[in-house]
Amino acid sequence: MNRPQSIERMIDVIKKLPGVGPKMAERLSYHILKMTDNEINRLVDSILKARQTVKSCSVCYNLSERDPCPICADSAKERSIICVVETPQDLIAVSRVKDYKGLYFVLGGALSPLDAVGPDDIRIDKLIKRLKSDNISEVIIATDADSKGEMTAIYLAELIKKLDVKVTRLGYGLPVGGDIEYADEVTISRAIAGRKEM
Amino acid sequence: MNRPQSIERMIDVIKKLPGVGPKMAERLSYHILKMTDNEINRLVDSILKARQTVKSCSVCYNLSERDPCPICADSAKERSIICVVETPQDLIAVSRVKDYKGLYFVLGGALSPLDAVGPDDIRIDKLIKRLKSDNISEVIIATDADSKGEMTAIYLAELIKKLDVKVTRLGYGLPVGGDIEYADEVTISRAIAGRKEM
Repeated sequence: MNRPQSIERMIDVIKKLPGVGPKMAERLSYHILKMTDNEINRLVDSILKARQTVKSCSVCYNLSERDPCPICADSAKERSIICVVETPQDLIAVSRVKDYKGLYFVLGGALSPLDAVGPDDIRIDKLIKRLKSDNISEVIIATDADSKGEMTAIYLAELIKKLDVKVTRLGYGLPVGGDIEYADEVTISRAIAGRKEM
Repeated sequence: MNRPQSIERMIDVIKKLPGVGPKMAERLSYHILKMTDNEINRLVDSILKARQTVKSCSVCYNLSERDPCPICADSAKERSIICVVETPQDLIAVSRVKDYKGLYFVLGGALSPLDAVGPDDIRIDKLIKRLKSDNISEVIIATDADSKGEMTAIYLAELIKKLDVKVTRLGYGLPVGGDIEYADEVTISRAIAGRKEM
Protein backbone atom coordinates (compact mmCIF):
# COMPACT_ATOMS: atom_id res chain seq x y z
CA MET A 1 0.00 0.00 0.00
CA ASN A 2 1.04 3.56 -0.43
CA ARG A 3 1.52 5.81 2.52
CA PRO A 4 -1.31 8.31 3.17
CA GLN A 5 -0.68 11.36 1.00
CA SER A 6 -0.39 13.78 3.90
CA ILE A 7 2.35 11.67 5.53
CA GLU A 8 4.14 11.43 2.17
CA ARG A 9 3.97 15.21 1.92
CA MET A 10 5.27 15.79 5.43
CA ILE A 11 8.20 13.44 4.73
CA ASP A 12 8.93 15.30 1.47
CA VAL A 13 9.07 18.65 3.24
CA ILE A 14 11.14 17.41 6.19
CA LYS A 15 13.54 15.62 3.82
CA LYS A 16 14.58 19.01 2.44
CA LEU A 17 16.02 20.15 5.79
CA PRO A 18 19.83 20.07 5.91
CA GLY A 19 21.36 16.83 7.11
CA VAL A 20 18.04 15.00 7.03
CA GLY A 21 17.96 12.00 4.69
CA PRO A 22 14.86 10.14 3.49
CA LYS A 23 15.01 7.55 6.30
CA MET A 24 15.45 10.21 8.97
CA ALA A 25 12.58 12.24 7.47
CA GLU A 26 10.38 9.16 7.68
CA ARG A 27 11.35 8.53 11.29
CA LEU A 28 10.75 12.16 12.27
CA SER A 29 7.38 12.21 10.50
CA TYR A 30 6.08 9.11 12.24
CA HIS A 31 7.37 10.48 15.52
CA ILE A 32 5.53 13.75 14.92
CA LEU A 33 2.31 11.82 14.28
CA LYS A 34 2.68 10.21 17.70
CA MET A 35 3.42 13.43 19.59
CA THR A 36 0.73 14.92 21.84
CA ASP A 37 -1.05 18.13 20.78
CA ASN A 38 0.88 19.90 23.50
CA GLU A 39 4.22 18.75 22.20
CA ILE A 40 3.30 19.73 18.64
CA ASN A 41 2.21 23.18 19.75
CA ARG A 42 5.48 23.62 21.59
CA LEU A 43 7.43 22.62 18.46
CA VAL A 44 5.47 24.79 16.04
CA ASP A 45 5.27 27.76 18.42
CA SER A 46 8.99 27.72 19.17
CA ILE A 47 9.71 27.86 15.44
CA LEU A 48 7.24 30.65 14.67
CA LYS A 49 8.23 32.61 17.78
CA ALA A 50 11.93 32.49 16.93
CA ARG A 51 11.27 33.62 13.37
CA GLN A 52 9.10 36.45 14.59
CA THR A 53 11.43 37.81 17.24
CA VAL A 54 14.88 37.17 15.83
CA LYS A 55 16.27 39.81 13.47
CA SER A 56 19.67 40.70 12.05
CA CYS A 57 21.53 43.38 14.00
CA SER A 58 21.85 46.37 11.66
CA VAL A 59 25.45 46.94 12.76
CA CYS A 60 27.07 43.49 12.80
CA TYR A 61 24.35 41.24 11.27
CA ASN A 62 24.39 38.97 14.29
CA LEU A 63 21.00 37.36 15.02
CA SER A 64 19.35 39.00 17.98
CA GLU A 65 16.01 39.92 19.48
CA ARG A 66 17.21 43.52 19.78
CA ASP A 67 18.75 45.98 17.32
CA PRO A 68 21.56 46.81 17.86
CA CYS A 69 22.38 43.41 19.36
CA PRO A 70 23.63 43.12 22.98
CA ILE A 71 27.25 42.98 21.79
CA CYS A 72 27.08 46.10 19.63
CA ALA A 73 25.18 47.86 22.42
CA ASP A 74 27.71 46.84 25.09
CA SER A 75 29.74 49.93 26.00
CA ALA A 76 32.38 47.77 27.71
CA LYS A 77 33.51 46.37 24.34
CA GLU A 78 36.69 47.49 22.66
CA ARG A 79 35.11 49.24 19.70
CA SER A 80 38.20 49.53 17.51
CA ILE A 81 38.59 45.80 16.81
CA ILE A 82 36.21 43.80 14.63
CA CYS A 83 36.22 40.03 14.28
CA VAL A 84 34.77 38.96 10.91
CA VAL A 85 32.95 35.60 10.90
CA GLU A 86 30.93 33.72 8.30
CA THR A 87 27.78 32.94 10.32
CA PRO A 88 25.97 33.88 13.54
CA GLN A 89 26.89 30.41 14.87
CA ASP A 90 30.58 31.23 14.34
CA LEU A 91 30.07 34.48 16.24
CA ILE A 92 28.66 32.55 19.22
CA ALA A 93 31.72 30.26 19.16
CA VAL A 94 34.21 33.16 19.13
CA SER A 95 32.26 35.07 21.76
CA ARG A 96 32.77 32.18 24.20
CA VAL A 97 36.46 33.13 24.24
CA LYS A 98 36.72 35.43 27.22
CA ASP A 99 39.97 37.15 26.10
CA TYR A 100 38.40 38.71 23.05
CA LYS A 101 36.72 41.99 23.96
CA GLY A 102 36.07 43.46 20.51
CA LEU A 103 33.09 43.68 18.19
CA TYR A 104 31.96 41.46 15.32
CA PHE A 105 30.77 41.39 11.74
CA VAL A 106 28.82 38.49 10.22
CA LEU A 107 29.52 38.07 6.49
CA GLY A 108 26.65 35.67 5.91
CA GLY A 109 28.77 33.07 4.13
CA ALA A 110 32.05 32.66 2.31
CA LEU A 111 33.13 33.19 -1.28
CA SER A 112 32.57 30.04 -3.30
CA PRO A 113 32.93 30.34 -7.07
CA LEU A 114 31.77 26.73 -7.54
CA ASP A 115 28.46 27.55 -5.84
CA ALA A 116 28.30 30.90 -7.64
CA VAL A 117 28.73 32.83 -4.40
CA GLY A 118 30.68 35.98 -5.27
CA PRO A 119 31.63 39.13 -3.33
CA ASP A 120 28.18 40.65 -3.95
CA ASP A 121 26.44 37.67 -2.35
CA ILE A 122 28.00 38.15 1.07
CA ARG A 123 28.23 41.38 3.08
CA ILE A 124 31.64 42.55 1.91
CA ASP A 125 30.37 45.98 0.82
CA LYS A 126 28.70 46.49 4.18
CA LEU A 127 31.86 45.51 6.02
CA ILE A 128 33.97 47.96 3.99
CA LYS A 129 31.40 50.69 4.57
CA ARG A 130 31.54 50.08 8.32
CA LEU A 131 35.34 50.13 8.31
CA LYS A 132 35.23 53.47 6.53
CA SER A 133 32.72 55.09 8.88
CA ASP A 134 33.75 53.61 12.24
CA ASN A 135 37.16 54.09 13.75
CA ILE A 136 38.53 50.57 13.39
CA SER A 137 42.20 49.79 14.02
CA GLU A 138 42.19 46.02 13.45
CA VAL A 139 40.11 43.42 11.65
CA ILE A 140 40.55 39.82 12.77
CA ILE A 141 39.39 37.50 10.02
CA ALA A 142 37.84 34.37 11.53
CA THR A 143 36.41 32.67 8.48
CA ASP A 144 36.44 28.86 8.43
CA ALA A 145 39.75 27.06 7.96
CA ASP A 146 38.57 25.45 4.72
CA SER A 147 39.28 26.53 1.15
CA LYS A 148 36.26 28.85 0.92
CA GLY A 149 37.08 30.52 4.21
CA GLU A 150 40.71 30.88 3.17
CA MET A 151 39.78 32.41 -0.19
CA THR A 152 37.40 34.82 1.53
CA ALA A 153 40.10 35.80 4.03
CA ILE A 154 42.61 36.56 1.26
CA TYR A 155 40.05 38.56 -0.71
CA LEU A 156 39.03 40.57 2.36
CA ALA A 157 42.61 41.19 3.45
CA GLU A 158 43.41 42.81 0.10
CA LEU A 159 40.47 45.18 0.37
CA ILE A 160 40.99 46.04 4.01
CA LYS A 161 44.71 46.76 3.68
CA LYS A 162 43.85 49.49 1.17
CA LEU A 163 41.95 51.25 3.96
CA ASP A 164 45.09 51.26 6.11
CA VAL A 165 43.49 49.01 8.69
CA LYS A 166 45.51 46.19 10.25
CA VAL A 167 44.24 42.76 9.15
CA THR A 168 44.96 39.52 11.00
CA ARG A 169 43.79 35.97 10.55
CA LEU A 170 43.18 33.32 13.24
CA GLY A 171 46.30 31.21 13.74
CA TYR A 172 46.43 27.71 12.31
CA GLY A 173 47.86 24.77 14.16
CA LEU A 174 47.04 21.70 16.15
CA PRO A 175 43.69 21.87 17.92
CA VAL A 176 44.24 21.90 21.66
CA GLY A 177 44.05 18.36 22.97
CA GLY A 178 44.65 17.13 19.43
CA ASP A 179 46.75 14.05 18.77
CA ILE A 180 49.60 14.62 16.30
CA GLU A 181 49.19 11.06 15.08
CA TYR A 182 45.74 11.91 13.72
CA ALA A 183 46.43 15.44 12.49
CA ASP A 184 46.50 15.86 8.72
CA GLU A 185 49.65 16.94 6.91
CA VAL A 186 48.42 20.41 6.09
CA THR A 187 47.58 21.14 9.72
CA ILE A 188 50.98 19.89 10.88
CA SER A 189 52.72 21.95 8.21
CA ARG A 190 50.79 25.05 9.37
CA ALA A 191 51.62 24.23 13.00
CA ILE A 192 55.32 24.06 12.13
CA ALA A 193 55.12 27.36 10.28
CA GLY A 194 53.37 28.88 13.29
CA ARG A 195 55.75 27.38 15.89
CA LYS A 196 56.64 29.48 18.92
CA GLU A 197 59.82 29.66 20.91
CA MET A 198 59.50 28.13 24.37
CA MET B 1 27.34 36.27 24.18
CA ASN B 2 24.36 34.06 24.76
CA ARG B 3 22.13 33.06 21.94
CA PRO B 4 18.78 34.89 21.76
CA GLN B 5 16.34 33.12 24.06
CA SER B 6 13.89 32.23 21.32
CA ILE B 7 16.61 30.48 19.30
CA GLU B 8 17.76 28.64 22.43
CA ARG B 9 14.18 27.52 22.96
CA MET B 10 13.74 26.33 19.38
CA ILE B 11 16.99 24.34 19.64
CA ASP B 12 15.79 22.79 22.92
CA VAL B 13 12.52 21.67 21.39
CA ILE B 14 14.08 20.35 18.17
CA LYS B 15 16.78 18.52 20.17
CA LYS B 16 14.09 16.31 21.66
CA LEU B 17 13.18 14.81 18.29
CA PRO B 18 14.49 11.27 17.80
CA GLY B 19 17.94 11.01 16.23
CA VAL B 20 18.56 14.75 16.50
CA GLY B 21 21.58 15.68 18.62
CA PRO B 22 22.41 19.14 19.98
CA LYS B 23 24.61 20.08 16.97
CA MET B 24 22.00 18.93 14.48
CA ALA B 25 19.29 20.83 16.40
CA GLU B 26 21.43 23.96 16.18
CA ARG B 27 21.99 23.51 12.46
CA LEU B 28 18.29 22.91 11.81
CA SER B 29 17.30 25.93 13.90
CA TYR B 30 19.59 28.34 12.08
CA HIS B 31 18.42 26.88 8.79
CA ILE B 32 14.80 27.45 9.80
CA LEU B 33 15.60 31.07 10.60
CA LYS B 34 16.89 31.51 7.06
CA MET B 35 13.93 29.86 5.34
CA THR B 36 11.42 32.02 3.47
CA ASP B 37 7.93 32.53 4.92
CA ASN B 38 6.65 30.31 2.16
CA GLU B 39 8.97 27.47 3.05
CA ILE B 40 8.10 27.76 6.72
CA ASN B 41 4.39 27.68 5.98
CA ARG B 42 4.89 24.60 3.84
CA LEU B 43 6.77 22.90 6.70
CA VAL B 44 4.32 23.82 9.44
CA ASP B 45 1.23 23.16 7.32
CA SER B 46 2.44 19.75 6.21
CA ILE B 47 2.91 18.76 9.85
CA LEU B 48 -0.45 20.09 11.03
CA LYS B 49 -2.28 18.70 8.00
CA ALA B 50 -0.84 15.22 8.46
CA ARG B 51 -1.77 15.22 12.14
CA GLN B 52 -5.26 16.36 11.33
CA THR B 53 -6.04 13.91 8.55
CA VAL B 54 -4.15 10.78 9.57
CA LYS B 55 -5.94 8.42 11.94
CA SER B 56 -5.50 4.84 13.08
CA CYS B 57 -7.57 2.31 11.15
CA SER B 58 -10.05 0.84 13.66
CA VAL B 59 -9.49 -2.65 12.28
CA CYS B 60 -5.72 -2.99 11.84
CA TYR B 61 -4.37 0.22 13.44
CA ASN B 62 -2.52 1.15 10.29
CA LEU B 63 -2.23 4.91 9.80
CA SER B 64 -4.59 6.12 7.12
CA GLU B 65 -6.71 9.04 6.03
CA ARG B 66 -9.72 6.71 5.85
CA ASP B 67 -11.27 4.28 8.31
CA PRO B 68 -11.15 1.40 7.58
CA CYS B 69 -7.84 1.87 5.77
CA PRO B 70 -7.51 1.05 2.05
CA ILE B 71 -6.04 -2.37 2.85
CA CYS B 72 -8.81 -3.43 5.23
CA ALA B 73 -11.38 -2.04 2.77
CA ASP B 74 -9.85 -3.89 -0.21
CA SER B 75 -12.16 -6.79 -1.11
CA ALA B 76 -9.41 -8.41 -3.19
CA LYS B 77 -7.41 -9.22 -0.05
CA GLU B 78 -7.22 -12.69 1.39
CA ARG B 79 -9.09 -12.01 4.61
CA SER B 80 -8.13 -15.16 6.51
CA ILE B 81 -4.43 -14.29 6.89
CA ILE B 82 -3.13 -11.53 9.15
CA CYS B 83 0.43 -10.28 9.23
CA VAL B 84 1.29 -8.79 12.64
CA VAL B 85 3.82 -5.96 12.60
CA GLU B 86 5.17 -3.58 15.24
CA THR B 87 4.66 -0.24 13.49
CA PRO B 88 2.86 1.36 10.53
CA GLN B 89 6.29 1.76 8.88
CA ASP B 90 6.81 -2.02 9.10
CA LEU B 91 3.40 -2.50 7.50
CA ILE B 92 4.45 -0.32 4.55
CA ALA B 93 7.61 -2.42 4.16
CA VAL B 94 5.73 -5.74 4.14
CA SER B 95 3.02 -4.36 1.86
CA ARG B 96 5.65 -3.72 -0.81
CA VAL B 97 5.99 -7.49 -1.14
CA LYS B 98 3.63 -8.31 -3.98
CA ASP B 99 3.21 -12.03 -3.07
CA TYR B 100 1.52 -11.30 0.22
CA LYS B 101 -2.20 -10.77 -0.29
CA GLY B 102 -3.45 -10.90 3.31
CA LEU B 103 -4.41 -8.34 5.92
CA TYR B 104 -2.42 -6.73 8.73
CA PHE B 105 -2.41 -5.83 12.37
CA VAL B 106 -0.18 -3.12 13.88
CA LEU B 107 0.81 -3.87 17.48
CA GLY B 108 2.16 -0.40 18.17
CA GLY B 109 5.48 -1.61 19.54
CA ALA B 110 7.13 -4.68 21.01
CA LEU B 111 7.36 -6.11 24.50
CA SER B 112 10.33 -4.65 26.34
CA PRO B 113 10.55 -5.33 30.07
CA LEU B 114 13.58 -3.05 30.40
CA ASP B 115 11.55 -0.11 29.08
CA ALA B 116 8.52 -1.22 31.13
CA VAL B 117 6.54 -2.07 27.99
CA GLY B 118 4.32 -5.01 28.89
CA PRO B 119 1.49 -6.85 27.10
CA ASP B 120 -1.02 -4.17 28.15
CA ASP B 121 1.04 -1.42 26.53
CA ILE B 122 0.78 -2.80 23.02
CA ARG B 123 -2.38 -3.98 21.22
CA ILE B 124 -2.22 -7.66 22.13
CA ASP B 125 -5.76 -7.72 23.57
CA LYS B 126 -7.12 -6.11 20.44
CA LEU B 127 -5.33 -8.61 18.23
CA ILE B 128 -6.72 -11.56 20.22
CA LYS B 129 -10.20 -10.05 20.08
CA ARG B 130 -9.92 -9.69 16.31
CA LEU B 131 -8.72 -13.28 15.95
CA LYS B 132 -11.72 -14.45 17.95
CA SER B 133 -14.30 -12.47 15.98
CA ASP B 134 -12.91 -12.70 12.44
CA ASN B 135 -12.37 -15.95 10.64
CA ILE B 136 -8.57 -16.09 10.63
CA SER B 137 -6.70 -19.21 9.60
CA GLU B 138 -3.11 -17.97 9.89
CA VAL B 139 -1.19 -15.25 11.69
CA ILE B 140 2.24 -14.37 10.29
CA ILE B 141 4.30 -12.68 12.97
CA ALA B 142 6.56 -10.06 11.40
CA THR B 143 7.97 -8.34 14.46
CA ASP B 144 11.56 -7.10 14.24
CA ALA B 145 14.41 -9.61 14.26
CA ASP B 146 15.83 -8.18 17.48
CA SER B 147 15.40 -9.44 21.04
CA LYS B 148 12.25 -7.41 21.72
CA GLY B 149 10.64 -8.52 18.47
CA GLU B 150 11.62 -12.11 19.17
CA MET B 151 10.21 -12.00 22.70
CA THR B 152 6.98 -10.47 21.41
CA ALA B 153 6.72 -13.16 18.73
CA ILE B 154 7.12 -15.95 21.27
CA TYR B 155 4.59 -14.37 23.63
CA LEU B 156 2.06 -13.89 20.83
CA ALA B 157 2.56 -17.38 19.44
CA GLU B 158 1.64 -18.91 22.80
CA LEU B 159 -1.59 -16.93 22.99
CA ILE B 160 -2.58 -17.47 19.37
CA LYS B 161 -1.97 -21.21 19.39
CA LYS B 162 -4.58 -21.52 22.15
CA LEU B 163 -7.15 -20.14 19.70
CA ASP B 164 -6.33 -22.94 17.26
CA VAL B 165 -5.01 -20.51 14.69
CA LYS B 166 -1.86 -21.35 12.75
CA VAL B 167 1.06 -19.07 13.73
CA THR B 168 4.14 -18.53 11.61
CA ARG B 169 7.14 -16.23 11.92
CA LEU B 170 9.13 -14.62 9.12
CA GLY B 171 12.12 -16.79 8.17
CA TYR B 172 15.58 -15.82 9.30
CA GLY B 173 18.65 -16.04 7.10
CA LEU B 174 21.04 -14.10 4.96
CA PRO B 175 19.59 -10.90 3.56
CA VAL B 176 19.37 -11.17 -0.24
CA GLY B 177 22.53 -9.70 -1.76
CA GLY B 178 24.23 -10.12 1.61
CA ASP B 179 27.87 -11.09 1.83
CA ILE B 180 28.53 -14.11 4.05
CA GLU B 181 31.85 -12.59 5.06
CA TYR B 182 30.04 -9.75 6.78
CA ALA B 183 27.07 -11.65 8.19
CA ASP B 184 27.08 -12.09 11.95
CA GLU B 185 27.28 -15.55 13.52
CA VAL B 186 23.71 -15.63 14.73
CA THR B 187 22.39 -14.83 11.26
CA ILE B 188 24.57 -17.54 9.69
CA SER B 189 23.47 -20.04 12.31
CA ARG B 190 19.81 -19.19 11.58
CA ALA B 191 20.50 -19.43 7.85
CA ILE B 192 21.95 -22.91 8.32
CA ALA B 193 18.97 -23.97 10.43
CA GLY B 194 16.68 -22.67 7.72
CA ARG B 195 18.61 -24.17 4.78
CA LYS B 196 16.64 -25.53 1.81
CA GLU B 197 17.37 -28.45 -0.45
CA MET B 198 18.37 -27.42 -3.96
